[in-house]
Amino acid sequence: MSQASDQLRQSPLTEITDDCAALSRGAAILGSGGGGDPYIGRLLAESAVRDHGPVPVTALEEVPDDAVVVAVAMMGAPTVMLEKLPSAEQFAAAVRALAAYRHITPTHIVCIEIGGVNSTSPIVAAAELGLPVVDADGMGRAFPEIQMVLPTLYGYSAAPMSVADEKGNQLIVDTIDNTWAERLSRTAVVEMGCSAITAQYALSGAELKKSFVPGGLSLCIRLGTAIERARAKNRDPVVAVADVLGGRILGAGKVIDIERRTTAGFARGLAHIASTDGVGDIELSFQNEHLMVTRNGSVETTAPDLIIVLDTETGEPITTEALRYGQRVRVVTAPADPRWHSPRAHRLAGPEYFHYDSAPIRFDGTEAA
Amino acid sequence: MSQASDQLRQSPLTEITDDCAALSRGAAILGSGGGGDPYIGRLLAESAVRDHGPVPVTALEEVPDDAVVVAVAMMGAPTVMLEKLPSAEQFAAAVRALAAYRHITPTHIVCIEIGGVNSTSPIVAAAELGLPVVDADGMGRAFPEIQMVLPTLYGYSAAPMSVADEKGNQLIVDTIDNTWAERLSRTAVVEMGCSAITAQYALSGAELKKSFVPGGLSLCIRLGTAIERARAKNRDPVVAVADVLGGRILGAGKVIDIERRTTAGFARGLAHIASTDGVGDIELSFQNEHLMVTRNGSVETTAPDLIIVLDTETGEPITTEALRYGQRVRVVTAPADPRWHSPRAHRLAGPEYFHYDSAPIRFDGTEAA
Repeated sequence: MSQASDQLRQSPLTEITDDCAALSRGAAILGSGGGGDPYIGRLLAESAVRDHGPVPVTALEEVPDDAVVVAVAMMGAPTVMLEKLPSAEQFAAAVRALAAYRHITPTHIVCIEIGGVNSTSPIVAAAELGLPVVDADGMGRAFPEIQMVLPTLYGYSAAPMSVADEKGNQLIVDTIDNTWAERLSRTAVVEMGCSAITAQYALSGAELKKSFVPGGLSLCIRLGTAIERARAKNRDPVVAVADVLGGRILGAGKVIDIERRTTAGFARGLAHIASTDGVGDIELSFQNEHLMVTRNGSVETTAPDLIIVLDTETGEPITTEALRYGQRVRVVTAPADPRWHSPRAHRLAGPEYFHYDSAPIRFDGTEAA
Repeated sequence: MSQASDQLRQSPLTEITDDCAALSRGAAILGSGGGGDPYIGRLLAESAVRDHGPVPVTALEEVPDDAVVVAVAMMGAPTVMLEKLPSAEQFAAAVRALAAYRHITPTHIVCIEIGGVNSTSPIVAAAELGLPVVDADGMGRAFPEIQMVLPTLYGYSAAPMSVADEKGNQLIVDTIDNTWAERLSRTAVVEMGCSAITAQYALSGAELKKSFVPGGLSLCIRLGTAIERARAKNRDPVVAVADVLGGRILGAGKVIDIERRTTAGFARGLAHIASTDGVGDIELSFQNEHLMVTRNGSVETTAPDLIIVLDTETGEPITTEALRYGQRVRVVTAPADPRWHSPRAHRLAGPEYFHYDSAPIRFDGTEAA
């Protein structure tokens, strides 16, 4: 670990109090361009902490084997979420609906997707329900579909899952696999107006410890804090981000062309970044997330590893929707959880799944066999 | 009641045995051009009776007030149902899923839609579950959407309802009103491949007796039998149908033009029937059902009353999809349950709901105020 990150808070996270700003900035970075605007999640989490007091945090390894853990996430279009902000009660309603259907009494709430808006969804639910939140998540980044999480690789089921909208409609989706959970909940969310709250992946503590990525909430706060401190000390915030993530700065440039088209519900796009560091222009392929970077005709990194586009000066992450002509950016690549690198995991969330003609390439440019 | 129908079986229906052919022919007539091909339902019901023996039938007025009654229906595109015939187990699974969610033990199964394929759906479920079926239904005809039933007018809720597909996926749809139940179950059924089994409108016996139409299964069998007997005795089967329903034969003619277009999931159409009885050409407007007949520029009948198109010789009902150039047809109109004639009921299933510019007109040509 580098000197920069050594200086950041390393003591275990025990509760969420006033960390929501740092947390949501870190979540935007781990979103790898997707996962939705964490600003909404920040507002919701801050309001929940204001109403109910600090939310206790349990480290993943400290969750009892027989704990009953429920993951909570918003689902839909982040732009819509911003227009019809979900209520805290809606988060709790989703958990209650699932608990009633499965005849379980949840003991902990957890995050399924640490990148983006869903970093704080479990905090809102936990505050409302008076439960602790686990410092972990199901992917260590953001991906657009329900089955694209590590628990799928362990054979754990997203379903039965619940979906709750702001009008009071609720669904229980009980499916034969996680791909069907995605399909049926997605069509419901679209019909509900493109934004709803879901409770999913009700797991035992033992299953959670096996299949989740530890330390996601802490990592977000570390990342957010690293950017703030670097700026305050006139250090380079982009270097700070790369250091915290153990990643590399792939290059710097100016966005000179962006192509977007929406196909089958996905906003697919390609950004051309003209090199300003003399190393070579970068082609950035994105859908909901930044998914592939190519330089001088060779693929430098693909999902599932993280591709993060940061404002070259401020270090603020730039989402796929926010990419604009003229932006000065630096591209950082960073390792995903190692469990994302297996043939099965690659089929679930590698370049082939996103219809790119490339083998999976790790953050450091090596082939992920 | 006319002489013709006097001769038909009038003793109360106590079980379903070998009546499925007559029942499904009658259901096709009550389908008013829609409700799907009852042939599929007939096959399923015959097979269920073969496997489990006769299915006991309870008259509506004999259902105990504290009975727990669940309505069972197929949902989706009838053409798809024919290609992937649902299993009897799928019907039972839908009922079991709803029963588990609501913590109820169903005592009776009932039909929500007597017209078309769903006349026999409850028979299949009842046979599989070892329960009696109630001789009643929720509309006395066919309509295309879940909320278009008499229980909606009594404030009874379709939801929570269950949806079960042939792969093993199940949904519980728990909504704030019956229109949302329709929207969310419909999108799920489309995603499931346009065909699924639903269990809905779990009602007490007291609620059922208040809001359902009595005698639907008996009426189907009477209709089917009337056609068969008329043919056997060289009488006019179309007259027999009109007699059993207390309706009128509006006119006879030849289909000389059909216009169809599919908008928002509905197959809307207009058939021009050139008069062969000298009374005047008929314009038949249809969507999923035959919904409006016009002659000499004046609207003769609209939904919610029944408009039935029959082959002029055989008396076989012709569905909206089966209408073809050159067919010789007679158009029969017949009264719907009187509760369909209130301003609220007309908003739910009158010509305005189907986007026709007409007041609701009864089967006899008078305005339904």
